[in-house]
Amino acid sequence: MKEERDLIRLQEVGRHLKDLRLLAGLSQDELAARCDLTKSNISNIENGKKDYFFTTFLEYAKALDVHPKELLNREFEFINKY
Amino acid sequence: MKEERDLIRLQEVGRHLKDLRLLAGLSQDELAARCDLTKSNISNIENGKKDYFFTTFLEYAKALDVHPKELLNREFEFINKY
Repeated sequence: MKEERDLIRLQEVGRHLKDLRLLAGLSQDELAARCDLTKSNISNIENGKKDYFFTTFLEYAKALDVHPKELLNREFEFINKY
Repeated sequence: MKEERDLIRLQEVGRHLKDLRLLAGLSQDELAARCDLTKSNISNIENGKKDYFFTTFLEYAKALDVHPKELLNREFEFINKY
């Protein structure tokens, strides 16, 4: 993992995922109940502090009941930076 | 990793990524030269045999010079199945 670059990527995506969860009116516990992720998985993903498996990302989309591409449907700053 | 379900997800996404790479007219070596992935990373991703980090997925998008959401811009069968 390229430390600084990847942490920035993970944090930006994590914030977007948290926004989508809140928009859906779900707590981390409620989201966890809808998929094979734990509350701690969800918290790590949203905080962007640690990398996670791609299938975990897909599972987050399933929990929100959205197509996975929606989780990336934002103009992230990191895209032009790195 | 939920074996069967996640392998199917990885294989479908891997095939799509390979299609995008071929559409861009790039070999795995040429794609590897454009990012921090090795040819073996790229081969594993496209074959969908092993899970990989989410930042690796983002790096693949950077190598293809596309927004990451484009890598998921397909009606995958696994979405309705799992």
